[in-house]
Amino acid sequence: MSGLERFSLNQWTVRQWSLPELVAGCAAAGVRAVGLWREPVREYGVEAAARLVRGAGLTVSSLCRGGFLTAADAPGRERALAGNRAAVEEAAALGAAALVLVAGGLPAGSRDLPGARERLADALAELGPYAAGYGVRLAIEPLHPMFASDRCVVSTLGQALDLAERFPAGQVGVVVDTYHLWWDDAVGRELVRAGEGGRIAAFQLADWITPLPEGVLLGRGQLGEGCVDLRWFRERVEAAGYAGAAEAEIFSPSLWAREGAEVLAETLDRYRTHVL
Amino acid sequence: MSGLERFSLNQWTVRQWSLPELVAGCAAAGVRAVGLWREPVREYGVEAAARLVRGAGLTVSSLCRGGFLTAADAPGRERALAGNRAAVEEAAALGAAALVLVAGGLPAGSRDLPGARERLADALAELGPYAAGYGVRLAIEPLHPMFASDRCVVSTLGQALDLAERFPAGQVGVVVDTYHLWWDDAVGRELVRAGEGGRIAAFQLADWITPLPEGVLLGRGQLGEGCVDLRWFRERVEAAGYAGAAEAEIFSPSLWAREGAEVLAETLDRYRTHVL
Repeated sequence: MSGLERFSLNQWTVRQWSLPELVAGCAAAGVRAVGLWREPVREYGVEAAARLVRGAGLTVSSLCRGGFLTAADAPGRERALAGNRAAVEEAAALGAAALVLVAGGLPAGSRDLPGARERLADALAELGPYAAGYGVRLAIEPLHPMFASDRCVVSTLGQALDLAERFPAGQVGVVVDTYHLWWDDAVGRELVRAGEGGRIAAFQLADWITPLPEGVLLGRGQLGEGCVDLRWFRERVEAAGYAGAAEAEIFSPSLWAREGAEVLAETLDRYRTHVL
Repeated sequence: MSGLERFSLNQWTVRQWSLPELVAGCAAAGVRAVGLWREPVREYGVEAAARLVRGAGLTVSSLCRGGFLTAADAPGRERALAGNRAAVEEAAALGAAALVLVAGGLPAGSRDLPGARERLADALAELGPYAAGYGVRLAIEPLHPMFASDRCVVSTLGQALDLAERFPAGQVGVVVDTYHLWWDDAVGRELVRAGEGGRIAAFQLADWITPLPEGVLLGRGQLGEGCVDLRWFRERVEAAGYAGAAEAEIFSPSLWAREGAEVLAETLDRYRTHVL
């Protein structure tokens, strides 16, 4: 047992790698799954990417990402829905276990959080059946509350579940990402709830370190570098019945500045030490 | 009616002002209350500061701040308790309506959030009666979750109330700060709960703007500049029975670079437009 049966490498952790480099690097390291991003996949060609990944014996634990479904104007809403339908089709082509959805932030000038959240729910009512038709499961990802205004109006696991539970579990699940959820004193009981409803569609790993950089997007920590009890999360999602991948998704310019293979080897080492 | 009956100016909003400048500036502008910080008060002299403020007819809506009570080692814990007892005495001398407590973050190398929270509760059990003996009310301030590791392990109003409710309401209340709480979908019902228990000890105002600066401490928005529905919060704390001050506490280098009187005039104008 290598201990890596459930490990997945999210493409953005090694952004310096092209898609072929990612696939070759993962195969060489004994990694069995990857999390992919739409932009590099489309650049390479969706069908070609699917063949490449499948040919190397890799599965796709998630496709990042759809969402951004909070526009208040009709043209903005239509554009977002069309983009998400395309994302569903790409996820289907890749055989991705989940299409990650990031809610979107407040429209410019708006102070109406409840309204933005309702528009997201309306969009899910349209996209859920569409995705199910392609065999794709949508996964709402709550992001850390520091992103609530400009990126994601869904900030906690409880809130993501409130939203997901309006729809069949096969259509809409949630993403459990340690970086976004670690601070929440309610996350333990919400993980139980997520498990009971069969709602955990993806599990992502990154550590929390400070100081946060300007813009706060690219300051994630390598596994074990920060203060998140990653093992606690892994045990809780497993206890909740989740049997999918544990995907390392670390946005960090200091990782991107290094050799991809070295970053992957370090990440696997940290995964064994701090997650397993 | 000037509309300013409940307005209070937190000293850190106009950090460029000395304490005498703050007192004179507030008196000139018709402001009736100030929120003070321990460091400048001690530098001026606590008794002298109390005379200065009282002599100008101002009340003290809050003293910032005590807390940082999460140390795991005995000497660190004793130092923190001693510092907080001193803060209680200073708050009593100033006649402050509340002594704001910021929990503190995780000790270096720790991943144990529940443990840190329990140490805070233990400290409150010691400090609550001590403060009550001086007629001072402790006010737990939940800070935005982006501060959970390095500054404050209490991140939501619900969590602050869970903690406060272990003690008599006269000993321990909570701070409602729009900047820290605006994103939380549970904040409406937690404000009702806070009101029912008579727990709201202070109400602070700042707006949320992005991008956040490096370190995220000094990126607060002037009232009305961001996406927080400040009026909604003011109405909710009033509906919850809170009759104390609404204190503008905006940490912003761009405000500190301007004339204090100009900043105060702008803040009062924004308060009338976006809060009242």
